[in-house]
Amino acid sequence: MNQKIRLTQSVQKGGCAAKVAATELRKILKNVEFPPTPAELKIDSGSFDDAAIFQVTPDLSLVQTLDFFTPIVDSPYLFGKIASVNALSDVYAMGGKPKTAMAIFAFPLAQMDNAVAVEVLQGASDVLREAKAALVGGHTIDDDTMKFGLSVTGYVHPQKVWSNAGAKPGDDLLLTKPLGTGTVTAALKRGEVSEEQIQDVLDSMCTINNVIEDLDDTDISSIHAATDITGFGLAGHSLNLANASGVTCVFRLEQLPLFSRAAEFIEKGFLTKAHRTNAEYVKEQIEISEGFPVLEKLIYDPQTSGGLLLAVSPQSSEKILAKIKKRFPFAVKIGSVSERKAKALQFRK
Amino acid sequence: MNQKIRLTQSVQKGGCAAKVAATELRKILKNVEFPPTPAELKIDSGSFDDAAIFQVTPDLSLVQTLDFFTPIVDSPYLFGKIASVNALSDVYAMGGKPKTAMAIFAFPLAQMDNAVAVEVLQGASDVLREAKAALVGGHTIDDDTMKFGLSVTGYVHPQKVWSNAGAKPGDDLLLTKPLGTGTVTAALKRGEVSEEQIQDVLDSMCTINNVIEDLDDTDISSIHAATDITGFGLAGHSLNLANASGVTCVFRLEQLPLFSRAAEFIEKGFLTKAHRTNAEYVKEQIEISEGFPVLEKLIYDPQTSGGLLLAVSPQSSEKILAKIKKRFPFAVKIGSVSERKAKALQFRK
Repeated sequence: MNQKIRLTQSVQKGGCAAKVAATELRKILKNVEFPPTPAELKIDSGSFDDAAIFQVTPDLSLVQTLDFFTPIVDSPYLFGKIASVNALSDVYAMGGKPKTAMAIFAFPLAQMDNAVAVEVLQGASDVLREAKAALVGGHTIDDDTMKFGLSVTGYVHPQKVWSNAGAKPGDDLLLTKPLGTGTVTAALKRGEVSEEQIQDVLDSMCTINNVIEDLDDTDISSIHAATDITGFGLAGHSLNLANASGVTCVFRLEQLPLFSRAAEFIEKGFLTKAHRTNAEYVKEQIEISEGFPVLEKLIYDPQTSGGLLLAVSPQSSEKILAKIKKRFPFAVKIGSVSERKAKALQFRK
Repeated sequence: MNQKIRLTQSVQKGGCAAKVAATELRKILKNVEFPPTPAELKIDSGSFDDAAIFQVTPDLSLVQTLDFFTPIVDSPYLFGKIASVNALSDVYAMGGKPKTAMAIFAFPLAQMDNAVAVEVLQGASDVLREAKAALVGGHTIDDDTMKFGLSVTGYVHPQKVWSNAGAKPGDDLLLTKPLGTGTVTAALKRGEVSEEQIQDVLDSMCTINNVIEDLDDTDISSIHAATDITGFGLAGHSLNLANASGVTCVFRLEQLPLFSRAAEFIEKGFLTKAHRTNAEYVKEQIEISEGFPVLEKLIYDPQTSGGLLLAVSPQSSEKILAKIKKRFPFAVKIGSVSERKAKALQFRK
């Protein structure tokens, strides 16, 4: 067995780009007759929120989410870390704190050495240790291509949930991480760059979206809505937030934070199928200024372990941004919320 | 796209037989440095129990488990049902009741019509409706081979957990479902039988292991230990129970309940890789009477959506068996628990 196998070469599609497209998924889901929704289920998948909220006591709700995907980097340890940070992110996006996790692991026993599996699990374990969450179980299957992810349960106070339905006109929109993991990892997969050359992207994907740890109760209640930016890109996830909140999100294209080589790789054409399907998903509800061909592609770029988009009261946003910047140096205001217009999304100069 | 695709022909290994072998998994896990175990985590994966127990309040613990696999039948609807019944089973095996579930869905978009995905999800939804659990989310990935399963969270009272560590010498061992899903579905995959000809096996795999619904509090406390019989077979799961409880499980080979054609297919050689790896897993700790070549293979048969094995106080076992039989007509006493002997498992005439 070859221990030096390049994980990104062992799969067709990497990371969140392998997600089934949102439009396709909606077509499937609308034909299923789902079981009834119990009273404890405060937020389910119907609003396309980041995670479900299930109330246990008057003071406690569970936040539940599940995510897994194929390798987007060659290092098994980094892959385990990134997949875990990405899965935990949905809990933070609801204002929760992760408590337990279970591993979803598809591993090609015949092609890869056990040491590779150990490294993936060590990456996951190190992230969970940092997040103060426990690994309580999981399931491992022998499969042709590797997949890894976590099913995560967190706690949140029922009155302190950051749903994606709470954004208010006037709110500022903050983003915690730069955009471009899709195009940069596509370039990595095709051998255009090495992992050493995209350290900024790897560091970002390994950074836990634990913004809440640095915030006090006043800050937390000033955040009216949140969502994490993953496979459907900035545009797709913002659309879900705008529609759930009944508002329009107005972004400034020139404010969007990019990884150092993201624009270069977009220009060179390192795109994924998700760039097209994400554009397709939002096309009826987006208005975008002309003359920004690269930035336009980046708003559709499928993010793996991307940042949180926070809709924050304008009185508090500067203070909150300053606190967040300690952990997320590239966090920045990228737009604001307005009353609902003809389109749910506006991307302006 | 061909809607008449035979699901069992689209995969190499079906159902729980695709699980990574227990011996292989242990080799991997022993090299991982896991995050610390918090005080709330009462049962983790270390004891190879069916699910984790995480205490939330003095009166409430969460039961958490996760399971997914490739198709073992051709009907997408039945596959969705079986995978879901199988995943819920671990919650029942801890004495819990399922509350929420999230779907793990790998779907070959290019090879299969959306209608196939709808049927799988409908099967899952119908099982969750019957179990009074909610489908709160999930993740769908585009993949070469189909996989489906659930991450399940249930509730259990912290003092009423059926761990696998509670079996006592003198307990009777009851099994709720017949053995043989591994060999029968192997015969199905190779075209030896049709789904119509193995209706008893399909019905059994679609039966939710909800024994607790028919039991009262006295019955529930008479059940000292439980485990569900899945991929590691009767021998493998019994070994985990015997070791966790510090006892020996003594089975009567001639009492083992079999599906109508299980013995025939074992004799014809319809075996899976798991038959060998399951035998390997227990070989140091098993004593088995000679002269039962077919039954010996059946104790290693990997079960998909198999029965619960219950260690029950001998004073209550007849009454409990009578109650269970309403839902599980083939439930039967298959042995008893003794003090720890040289070997953890004895299979006698």
